[in-house]
Amino acid sequence: MADTGNEFSFEVVRTCPVTGARAGVLTTPHSVVETPVFMPVGTQATVKTMSQQELEAIDVRIILGNTYHLYLRPGPDLVREAGGLHEFMGWKRSLLTDSGGFQVFSLNDLRKIDREGVTFRSHIDGSSHLFTPERVMEIEHDLGADIIMAFDECIPYPATREYVTKSCLTTGEWAERCSGTHAKLNDGSQVLFGICQGSVYPDLRENVARRLVDMDFWGYAIGGLAVGEPKKHMFEMIEVTNAVLPRKKPRYLMGVGFPDDIVEAVSRGVDMFDCVMPTRNARNGTVFTRHGKVVLKNAHQARKFVPIDPECQCPVCRNYTKAYIRHLFQTGEILAPRLATLHSIYFYVTTMREMRKAIIENRFPEWREEFLSTYRNEDKSDEF
Amino acid sequence: MADTGNEFSFEVVRTCPVTGARAGVLTTPHSVVETPVFMPVGTQATVKTMSQQELEAIDVRIILGNTYHLYLRPGPDLVREAGGLHEFMGWKRSLLTDSGGFQVFSLNDLRKIDREGVTFRSHIDGSSHLFTPERVMEIEHDLGADIIMAFDECIPYPATREYVTKSCLTTGEWAERCSGTHAKLNDGSQVLFGICQGSVYPDLRENVARRLVDMDFWGYAIGGLAVGEPKKHMFEMIEVTNAVLPRKKPRYLMGVGFPDDIVEAVSRGVDMFDCVMPTRNARNGTVFTRHGKVVLKNAHQARKFVPIDPECQCPVCRNYTKAYIRHLFQTGEILAPRLATLHSIYFYVTTMREMRKAIIENRFPEWREEFLSTYRNEDKSDEF
Repeated sequence: MADTGNEFSFEVVRTCPVTGARAGVLTTPHSVVETPVFMPVGTQATVKTMSQQELEAIDVRIILGNTYHLYLRPGPDLVREAGGLHEFMGWKRSLLTDSGGFQVFSLNDLRKIDREGVTFRSHIDGSSHLFTPERVMEIEHDLGADIIMAFDECIPYPATREYVTKSCLTTGEWAERCSGTHAKLNDGSQVLFGICQGSVYPDLRENVARRLVDMDFWGYAIGGLAVGEPKKHMFEMIEVTNAVLPRKKPRYLMGVGFPDDIVEAVSRGVDMFDCVMPTRNARNGTVFTRHGKVVLKNAHQARKFVPIDPECQCPVCRNYTKAYIRHLFQTGEILAPRLATLHSIYFYVTTMREMRKAIIENRFPEWREEFLSTYRNEDKSDEF
Repeated sequence: MADTGNEFSFEVVRTCPVTGARAGVLTTPHSVVETPVFMPVGTQATVKTMSQQELEAIDVRIILGNTYHLYLRPGPDLVREAGGLHEFMGWKRSLLTDSGGFQVFSLNDLRKIDREGVTFRSHIDGSSHLFTPERVMEIEHDLGADIIMAFDECIPYPATREYVTKSCLTTGEWAERCSGTHAKLNDGSQVLFGICQGSVYPDLRENVARRLVDMDFWGYAIGGLAVGEPKKHMFEMIEVTNAVLPRKKPRYLMGVGFPDDIVEAVSRGVDMFDCVMPTRNARNGTVFTRHGKVVLKNAHQARKFVPIDPECQCPVCRNYTKAYIRHLFQTGEILAPRLATLHSIYFYVTTMREMRKAIIENRFPEWREEFLSTYRNEDKSDEF
């Protein structure tokens, strides 16, 4: 796969003097990614319903693939034979793979967690598999994403202090083993992020973060949040962790989230995000706009011969009406989830871009206030 | 809807001196359509899996909508309120609507056919409806396609000579009633095609065609073929009908078909085609190429890291491999039917364009021979 010729780098170009918001530039061999950035989720080597050309056209610079799913189908050997995930899926820009931790810990037929790793059953055919830190590094190396994630234990919420303490020790050990294996396998085409866990215990979060900082990862993720805990805990944990993480390295809040939560997390110094929210909700007929959510399937949309958002410049709002998209949902047409997904990803991407511009122009607090008051006034979203 | 400012016209610009193949230009207020042309089927105001922008990008000039389906959902009133089907679905080029005849005669819960019309039950909610020639003209007028079709009785195959004789009388009467209603409703924005039936009885086909020619329709369709009759009958019926139809008017063979059948029908003087073949087969994982069909779901595609057809210039073959598309089918991803559909429509569109060029350059018989020998040698289709 032709790449940009760039080496990996990350630079914070501006920090908001009032909040902790940062505007940065993350460069990989495949693209320049301006942060804060939202990464659409491409679980099975495709952002559901989208083509790679559509994502490029709305200026998506990086997408995420799920190691668990790609390990099962088509398998890391096949992806390696294809020349890696970029080549396999025909995506020329940056890629990040998660570690599979979130998925294997979500499985019901999870058999065994020990210090060695996790034995689990495939959700497809029930076959038994073992993920260890070493094996996950091999798989992510075969997949060949630009950014790869260490294998961690995702702690469900709520969890006792005792359980979290023990789990954090395991995650720390696994992070070290990942780091060691990555050092052996890496040819310079990938960088590894560590994942900070710790549930909602500030001191445990702080300890894990310190331990991972000592291991000198290229970047850091905050994991185990947005799993059911109250939002104030989520934001507190972000603050505690970011206070420890080095300022010069990228920070990635995994699995978040709603547009307003992303704005709040950016305010606290987070640079990278991923979430199935815009894509999954879109397939169910709900899209995001400046004015909050719009439910396209609702009967009252039947004669709304206007775009989802008349001010939106996305390819959907420039060409289609809510009445038409509602008809497509009613009749079960594939174009329905396509248009809804494209609109919502565009909304996320442009919101991140506006946010970044506001940070650079030293007006992030004002932008945030305006965005949140408009966004949270959902009553307006269907008034067009 | 902005239109081209053109009036309706049809001109045969070249006729093959050896075969009956014609190259023509059909102009509507919405686009210039070069014939022979294949019209992708957009049953429910969408060519399944495609966006209107994708169809424009591969130079589709006209698509078809199904009156039966659009009558049930979203309903002709809603489409009229939207400003017509072009406006409703955001398609700026030409549209043709069928008459619903084929669908209502395919329904199992068909209640009653008489000279007045057809009473049928909706496949969606079982509600009862009456289609008469007058009602169908009203519906097609509300839908507002450029080209609309008269309401006919689609005769199943096989049918007795007695049944067909009687049915042809009905179709003739209905054609007159359609013509009369169209004359009243039409404001110059639509043209009406008559549909020649007659099953596989050459003399009945000839009689019906003569009767319809006397009614002076703007264009003529050949219906009731490709419904299970032997191919030689199909081609004979095309020949019999085209011998009667006026040379200066467009001829549309409804529901056909396979690429090689289209070539044979063009050889016999047909100008327009529609069929669900490329789109429906694509959704099931089979695409068309110069070398015949390719089954993308097959296990042996798993490691074919090459395009469907390396010489194809379509957006799919320029960006994706068979291995990737097979993976998408395996995992049930929406991008799978999207890519397969886009490739197959592109193949049909470009084949029609090549065919037209060959007619204009007086080398259609040679082109036909080469195309058919390559196309029918399917063994080669998976050798890339």
